[in-house]
Order: sequence, then C-alpha cells, then structure tokens
Amino acid sequence: MTIAATRTGVPGSKTAETPAAGPAAAEPDTASGRTVPDGTVRHLRIGDLDLESGARLPAATLGYETWGTLNADRSNAVLIEHALTGDTHVTRGASEEPGWWEQLAGPGAPVDTDKYFVVSINILGGCYGSTGPSTPAPDGAPWGSRFPLVTLRDTTAAEARLADALGIRSWYAVLGGSLGGARALEWAVSFPERVRRCAVISIGASSTAEQIAFAQAQTLAIRQDPSFNGGDYYGGPEPEAGLALARRIAHITYRSAAELDVRFGRNAQDSEAPLGAASLAGRGRYQVESYLDHQGNKLVRRFDANSYIAITEALMSHDVSRGRGALGEALAPATADFLVAAVDSDRLYFPAQSRALAEALPGDVEVHLIEAPIGHDGFLTEIGQLSSQLRENFFG
Amino acid sequence: MTIAATRTGVPGSKTAETPAAGPAAAEPDTASGRTVPDGTVRHLRIGDLDLESGARLPAATLGYETWGTLNADRSNAVLIEHALTGDTHVTRGASEEPGWWEQLAGPGAPVDTDKYFVVSINILGGCYGSTGPSTPAPDGAPWGSRFPLVTLRDTTAAEARLADALGIRSWYAVLGGSLGGARALEWAVSFPERVRRCAVISIGASSTAEQIAFAQAQTLAIRQDPSFNGGDYYGGPEPEAGLALARRIAHITYRSAAELDVRFGRNAQDSEAPLGAASLAGRGRYQVESYLDHQGNKLVRRFDANSYIAITEALMSHDVSRGRGALGEALAPATADFLVAAVDSDRLYFPAQSRALAEALPGDVEVHLIEAPIGHDGFLTEIGQLSSQLRENFFG
Repeated sequence: MTIAATRTGVPGSKTAETPAAGPAAAEPDTASGRTVPDGTVRHLRIGDLDLESGARLPAATLGYETWGTLNADRSNAVLIEHALTGDTHVTRGASEEPGWWEQLAGPGAPVDTDKYFVVSINILGGCYGSTGPSTPAPDGAPWGSRFPLVTLRDTTAAEARLADALGIRSWYAVLGGSLGGARALEWAVSFPERVRRCAVISIGASSTAEQIAFAQAQTLAIRQDPSFNGGDYYGGPEPEAGLALARRIAHITYRSAAELDVRFGRNAQDSEAPLGAASLAGRGRYQVESYLDHQGNKLVRRFDANSYIAITEALMSHDVSRGRGALGEALAPATADFLVAAVDSDRLYFPAQSRALAEALPGDVEVHLIEAPIGHDGFLTEIGQLSSQLRENFFG
Repeated sequence: MTIAATRTGVPGSKTAETPAAGPAAAEPDTASGRTVPDGTVRHLRIGDLDLESGARLPAATLGYETWGTLNADRSNAVLIEHALTGDTHVTRGASEEPGWWEQLAGPGAPVDTDKYFVVSINILGGCYGSTGPSTPAPDGAPWGSRFPLVTLRDTTAAEARLADALGIRSWYAVLGGSLGGARALEWAVSFPERVRRCAVISIGASSTAEQIAFAQAQTLAIRQDPSFNGGDYYGGPEPEAGLALARRIAHITYRSAAELDVRFGRNAQDSEAPLGAASLAGRGRYQVESYLDHQGNKLVRRFDANSYIAITEALMSHDVSRGRGALGEALAPATADFLVAAVDSDRLYFPAQSRALAEALPGDVEVHLIEAPIGHDGFLTEIGQLSSQLRENFFG
C-alpha cells in the first residue's frame, strides 16, 4: 500500500510531522481554526499518553479537520467521529472533494456548517493524520510491531486534549456511526460534562463475541500474510493480500445477504466461467467474488494494514461498562441527550443491541430505525433518513 | 496436517489405494456389503468421470461406509450425505467410535439400521476415502493443484455408479444437511426415478451470493498461506494457518451471534489479558478467540486444505436449477416425497431459503423448523427434533 494522498488531497500520516514529545500544545494555525481552509487535515501534538494497557505512547499527534467557525462563547462545536477505515473528511470544504457524511453535515445540512463549528478527528492508530503504526516512533523508524494497543477510552482521552487546545469546554454534540458511534458513546460516558448531545448510530454498548470473532478473522488474515513480517513491513513489500482479505470478510458483514443476492445472485463476472476450468485455480469468478476483490483492492490502495489491525483491536476493546459496573451504572453519569439509531437490516451491529443500549441509557431514549435493505453500511448511505430526527432533537 | 487416522480408525485417503482406471466395478468385498464390518470405510473404483467443466477425472475411487443389510428386493437402501468437512461415519458400527448423526441413524433410530441398509459416501474431492487432491493422480504424485473442479452434479453422477455397483436401483430415501442436503437434492433432481424420499435440511436450492462470498474468503485464506504453494504442498509444510483461518470464518457462520454471546460474551480466556500488553502482537485473547483457535486447530489435524477448497468450490457450485430452467421447472421432474427442514436461528442458510425451496418443489411441502439457538450447526446437534417427522413421513 502506498498512501499517496487521502481523499482530501493531503498526504496521509506517513508524511505527517512528528514533533518532539511534549504537553498538549495548540499551534498557532491550529487554535485559530482560521489559517487552514475548512476540510483540510491539520495536526496537533498532544504529548505523551498513558494507556489502559499500562504502556505509554510518547509524542502523539492527532490529525483533524474543521468546518465553520467556533462562536464567541465556544458553544457550537460538534464532533463527528469516523468509522473503522474512515478519515476526517466528513464533508467537502475548501476543495470540492466530497466527504463521507454529506447528508449529515455541510451548509444547510442537519449539522449546518454555517452555524456549527464541526470537528472530525482521525482515531489514534489510524493512517489519516494521527499517530499510528506507520508514523515514526521517537527513534525515527515507523512504530510497526511496537505500536501499542490503544483502546477507545485511550483515544477518547487523547481527543479531549484536542478539545482543550481548541478551547472547546463542552461539545454541543458528538455523533458517530459504527466505530464512530462507539467513540461518541465513550466520549459521553468518559466526559459527561463535556458532551451535551450524543448520537450513537449502528453500534451497541460493547463489541459482542461475534463482533470480536469477525474482527479476529480479519486481523489474522493480515498477520498471516507472508509480507506482514510481524508488523515491520515498511520499506518492503506490504501485506496487501492479507489486508484485502480482511476487507472482504468485513465487507460481507457490512452488507445484508439480501443486498448481495439482489445485486449479484449467482451471476458470473462478465465472460468469466465459474465452472469452466480444468483446475480449481483457473476457474472464472462469480460476480460477488469480483465485487469483493474490488472492495479489497480499493482499501489496499488507501489504508495501512497495521492501522487496520490497530483500529480493529480498538473496536474489539469497545465496552463502555468496563470497570464501571453494570451497564446501567456505567451509563448513569452521562448527562447528554441521546439519540440512538440502527439500520433495520444490519446483521453485524444488530438493532437489538442498539435497543439494549437505549434501554440502559438514562432517561427515555428511543431507537430510530433506518430502513435500508443494504445492511450495516446504511449508516453511511442512508443517514439522510435521520435528518428530521436530528433537526428536531438536536439541531432545531 | 497429517491425517493419521479418521475417527473410524481407518486411514484417510492419503493411504487409500488408487487402482488403475477402469469402468465401475464392485470388488468382492464391496458388493456383498458383508465381509467388511458395518461402519468401516471401504473403497470402490468407479472409473473415469467426465465433469461439468469439460475436464476428465480419471480412475476415480469413492470411499463409503454401510450399516445393516440390503434386503432381497433391494428396496431398503438409505443414502445419508455428509456436510462440508464431514466423513462417512454417520453412526457407530463394529467399533464403538461415535458417528456424527446418531440421533438420526442407528439401531432403533428413525433411520433404523436393523431395518434399513444405510450407505454414506465421501464426497469426491474429500479426504476420507474418495479421490481428492491429496490422493495420487495416474502419475503417482498427489493431484494437488491439478485436481479439477468437481461440482455437486459431478459427484452425484459418481455416486450413482456406486449405487449401481451395490445393486441399488432406487434409494428408499436420501437425506442430508447443509452441503449434504444439497447433495440429497441434487440426487432427487438428477435421478428422479432413483430417489423415493428426500430430506433436504438446512440448505436452499442454490448457494446464494452471500454464501459464495463467505466461501471465497475461506478459500482465499488457504490460498494465501505461504505454505500453500499453489496447492502443491504435499511432502512439505502444509497451509495449516490458512486452513485454520478458513475454519474460523466458517465456524462463526455456523453459530448464531446469540450463541457466541451467551457462551463467551467479552470474557478473557483464563488468565489472559486482552488489554494487557505493550504491543498489539502480545495481548491476551478473548475467550471467543481461543474457542475459534481451537476449532481451527482441530480441523487442521483432521482435514486436507486442498480438500477444503475442492469441497467448498463444489458447494459454491450448488444450483439445482443450473441449465434446467426456472427453479420450479428444474424441480418438476423430481418424484420423491420431500421433507424440508431448517434451523430457526441459522444465519448462513436462512430458513427463508428452505421455504423458497419448499414452495418450488412439486406437491405440498412444508418446512419443519428445528428450534435451536445455536445457529446452523443445529442441523447436527438437534437433528433429533426431526425424529417424529421422519418416522411419520418417511420411516413409519
């Protein structure tokens, strides 16, 4: 994989600066939110992080983007958290490069960037601007196999330093879907006084055994790639086949069986012949195989395999009640208004898990169902279905 | 992987004899069904096979087991077809080695081996007695990468030769679950006059796009193992890690999310610490990961990776209507009485697919639901739930 450029046209973390260790410090062009155009990745040094595992991550940097202007009383900041392989480009900015949640955020959208100051942060461990396995450790070499396990609680604590640096005492709202929803929930529970509204979409209160199981298969697919080299593959061939396989497995779970069947059925890919070869190795592909090949190869071109592992491990760690008692007890301190939503056809993050979360949250929280046959990915493609709920409840 | 011995105590196909090519010919100890004890693998040379792909498989052998005695008018023969990694040992015989469907077949069971002559055939491509990638090709070397794609229709045609050799003109019944159910269905449609009753359990009329997708991930996991060597790994290290990963992926789909969550939840394995390590590579496992490690390693000890690919490809080929018109047209020639069943919690072979099959079958076929929270594997563990239906409809 070569991260030539992210979708925003800004180089990925392989080229991110890695300032020396130090306490959280906003750089002049960062705190103002002004000198860098909207929707452009910028970077903030947040210093050393003590992690849940007991390890320390020194000299961490967070990549982030912003849109709009923080108002005088700093009350209009909205944090949007990306999902597993997402980046910070939620919506278009100075460039017309489209973002991944434009139905949700942008001028005139429910999260109106003419009204709100919108922030999106690359998760620690990622490859879109934040410190991750592909960025240099203090010794100048990529972290690689040495990169520590960064839980969602760790990354939330890191993001609080960025909020500090931006002068955001409390978020008007924190929103996210899938892993992004887990990040939003962790924010609302870790820092109750800093989250006034919280939308948790397409994820439950913790990663379940099945979700951990699918995640393990994906990380193993990468780790078993002969080019993985224990995670120290930078400068050599990269574990592209393993990452592409991981993505195939994941992508199946992101779509519903019905969606795959309606789109592809048992069709052969173009003129390929799935039954027409003398040996197994030579047969043609079914259309759905070709589709998943494409999904895998597409990710390989834009994502680092170690980051895929690091963030998947973070998602496996998702458990808002860890060390906080029973789920109801764990959620009790949260003071945010919550909005919980799920895709009705989701077969990975089942609506029942969103309902269980909603029931355990303080107050009377209902679950909004996104109706989409596509499966989990409906949280991206059909987020517009939540526009009226978001406007009524959060952004009226 | 070393197939030291199958569960029946009989060496696997690596040590199976490979007689010279020739027409189907029952050996003396085969046709009599007498000189070899019940529940012991025996072998039959069935000659050369012309395959759907256009390729030819020369000098094929089928491994099979039998129980009971074929009656004088040869009307009491029941064929039980195994699933993906199954073998021919349906139930115990001369040895007390337990079989995999003892709730269904055995003395006093619905398929009463005191009354019926029960036959079980190892699928072509397998590693439990039939010709497969690990058995010698005519040149004496293992087939390996040269093994052809054998569809379910091919393997059914091969099995018809075994029925011929045993003197079985028509089966009293053909039964199977999962892949075994697909094999049973293919029998009833390919040879309508030879199947009087047919039970198709936990599978639909064809492999769907999602089933193909999960299958592709599994075969890729093996093919991408550095020891796979294009399929020619015999005599060297074997693609154990790839096969174990394939099994993990499969096993997740064989169980329901609820079953995994109730059994394992987010528990750590013994004293291992999923969050407690300085680097990602060193962390402890969740219980569900350890469980899937165990499932993967268990299969590696008893199964050949190429056979896993060959049979998975056969399952991908499952489409009873291929070349036979619409599903209703394709099924119309079948004259068997059908029994269709599904596990209510199955998330791979959905009950809806069994219902679609039942609706398309000639006559009025209802779907019996096995009630089991476990998921797909309920077709093995809970088959006893069909005992009364099987006795009433088939074996009264």
